[in-house]
Amino acid sequence: MVYFDNNATTPLDPVARAVWITAADEAWANPSSPYRASARVRNLLEECRERSASLIGCATEEIVFNSGATEANNAVFAYLAGCARPSQSVLISPVEHPSVLEAASHSFPDRVIFAEVDSEGVVDPESVRALLRKHSPAAVSVMAANNETGVIQPFESLATICRERGVPYHCDAAQWPGKMPASRLSACDFLTGSAHKFGGPKGVGFLRVPAEINDFRGQLGGEQEGRRRAGTENYPAVAAMVAALADREANGFDDMEERVARRAHFEARLLEEVPGARILAAGRERLWNTVSIVLPRHENHRWVMKLDREGFAVSTGSACSTGDGNPSHVLAAMGRSPAEARRVVRVSAGRDTRDAEWNGLAKAFGNVWRRWDEKRSDSALTEVVSI
Amino acid sequence: MVYFDNNATTPLDPVARAVWITAADEAWANPSSPYRASARVRNLLEECRERSASLIGCATEEIVFNSGATEANNAVFAYLAGCARPSQSVLISPVEHPSVLEAASHSFPDRVIFAEVDSEGVVDPESVRALLRKHSPAAVSVMAANNETGVIQPFESLATICRERGVPYHCDAAQWPGKMPASRLSACDFLTGSAHKFGGPKGVGFLRVPAEINDFRGQLGGEQEGRRRAGTENYPAVAAMVAALADREANGFDDMEERVARRAHFEARLLEEVPGARILAAGRERLWNTVSIVLPRHENHRWVMKLDREGFAVSTGSACSTGDGNPSHVLAAMGRSPAEARRVVRVSAGRDTRDAEWNGLAKAFGNVWRRWDEKRSDSALTEVVSI
Repeated sequence: MVYFDNNATTPLDPVARAVWITAADEAWANPSSPYRASARVRNLLEECRERSASLIGCATEEIVFNSGATEANNAVFAYLAGCARPSQSVLISPVEHPSVLEAASHSFPDRVIFAEVDSEGVVDPESVRALLRKHSPAAVSVMAANNETGVIQPFESLATICRERGVPYHCDAAQWPGKMPASRLSACDFLTGSAHKFGGPKGVGFLRVPAEINDFRGQLGGEQEGRRRAGTENYPAVAAMVAALADREANGFDDMEERVARRAHFEARLLEEVPGARILAAGRERLWNTVSIVLPRHENHRWVMKLDREGFAVSTGSACSTGDGNPSHVLAAMGRSPAEARRVVRVSAGRDTRDAEWNGLAKAFGNVWRRWDEKRSDSALTEVVSI
Repeated sequence: MVYFDNNATTPLDPVARAVWITAADEAWANPSSPYRASARVRNLLEECRERSASLIGCATEEIVFNSGATEANNAVFAYLAGCARPSQSVLISPVEHPSVLEAASHSFPDRVIFAEVDSEGVVDPESVRALLRKHSPAAVSVMAANNETGVIQPFESLATICRERGVPYHCDAAQWPGKMPASRLSACDFLTGSAHKFGGPKGVGFLRVPAEINDFRGQLGGEQEGRRRAGTENYPAVAAMVAALADREANGFDDMEERVARRAHFEARLLEEVPGARILAAGRERLWNTVSIVLPRHENHRWVMKLDREGFAVSTGSACSTGDGNPSHVLAAMGRSPAEARRVVRVSAGRDTRDAEWNGLAKAFGNVWRRWDEKRSDSALTEVVSI
């Protein structure tokens, strides 16, 4: 299987795998226990915190390790609602991940204001500035890069605007680290990351909580993570996550132009192979690994199935909503009709995806398309013959 | 290091380690994605659910996989509070884990009623029956076995009494599976378990939610776990957890009498080695692996340090409260003074702890004790000489 669903999850990087195994074998003691073996793990854990903070560009004590982005997003909105005035709203984008959308609606019932996005799903910072003036929300939450289209939001501008107004800015950056330099996220007050999106293990992530906040309590019941997240620290997973992030940071970004060129080449080939296909947000800054394609005919589930049989794993959209059969809320926010949204296939490459794989995928799209076309011709012919 | 802190965490069982690695290598696809590789992981995940449900003795669809006991306990109380009438209380024991105590207080502010415990920390079912009549609480939560003393609560009787009254019963069983047969837990409506307490990986656990409840939402933002816990499923960790549990269930309980005898032998030796020491809840049914010792002199931190230097890892109490310097709330509930509580050391053996290790630990306690005693004699002598 050639894997093109890295926005759903990534395979475990070899470096993360090795680190996890060593940690599980040698540093499994509970970091909160009172003997030397535990103190050693406690120190190793703090080294991970330091290392990740330095990659992101924040203070060490701002990093909270947890079980991943969904936990983080839920915890952030619960916290923000606890600080907000009873009638105060929260401002988010309509293209957020469901864990932001649902957590916001749950914690701020009937008090979620949506920033406008354009037809390519990008938030306009100036409209956010206007909404801040008008509504004085408790916080703003806009993601770094969209999981379905790869579109990059102007999160740095949004962070600046929010800072000027004294409004906390949360950024769900689940799709950012490992693909783009983590240090660009340093201006976000709250920041959500998930290891399994960048070659780390599943079930582990990080949350940045601003240093000046001392009453954040993600889970109650212990002193771990500076009381901000109770529960036995999962050092093996944290160490593997930080190793994966550091590895990608060290190797990943000097060839960004080539990566974008590889994607552009795929897109051009795809449009030749499947005439009438369109690339969503084609003109906007997008993650180098993500292509969201509106196909001219046939529902995306059928495309995914046919491409699977050609040896390629692609997705109908976000894995989180694959099961529910509803057309994507992201595409709806971009003004796409449900019928069109049901023809969208998402392709998301990995760190090591090669030219040949991109080319193979474009060709596979063509094969699937032509086979359908032949069938149509056949049946047209049959019709002609039978007349 | 000879490890006697298995109630804090366990090393990863070889079977769990092997299963984790295989799953991380071969079954890392996102179970919610729409191609065959994902369908395979989805099926494997459901097999894990079936297997764990059958070990516990509940319906497959009642099992929710999550990040561990702290998450589970927090989620249960948040859910229960959402169902409760505004003034309705919740009934818990005062010897619960902090993740129950704090989650209950947070979700039921000023509405937590405490069941009485006797001087050995055991809840009396009849007193719970009376409290149920008097207060009609929204739920009852009493743990299976205490993490500090190993005392076993009458959770089966409590489940029956709660069922008779139509009150949901939650049991934090973090210390039970792997040490005792999981099937004894089958009468508990809500049930919390944590893999790293029974040889599984850290960062993964399970929660039983009664089948008739369809509005439980532990984390929001996706359809995973029957909508009861959003977030990408951590199949490698779940598979490793279930393998560890199944392995302990298959091998662990036919030698229970020997295990209890081994503990009794240790206790007898310890009392010879350290005259004046006492075993907490000595006369009650306790986990075969746990001994909580009140030492005649010296704070527990000093004992832990000295024993560490002798090559033994033991604890001052629960790892969750090791850092905070407060004497144990469990011992306070048992009527022990803070001074006494500060002299308590917890010893918790593992599945494979051998006679020689138990004996070695008793001897190490004796060595530490005698060395202090000699110092005392020396300084007494010095005093005599200097007079």
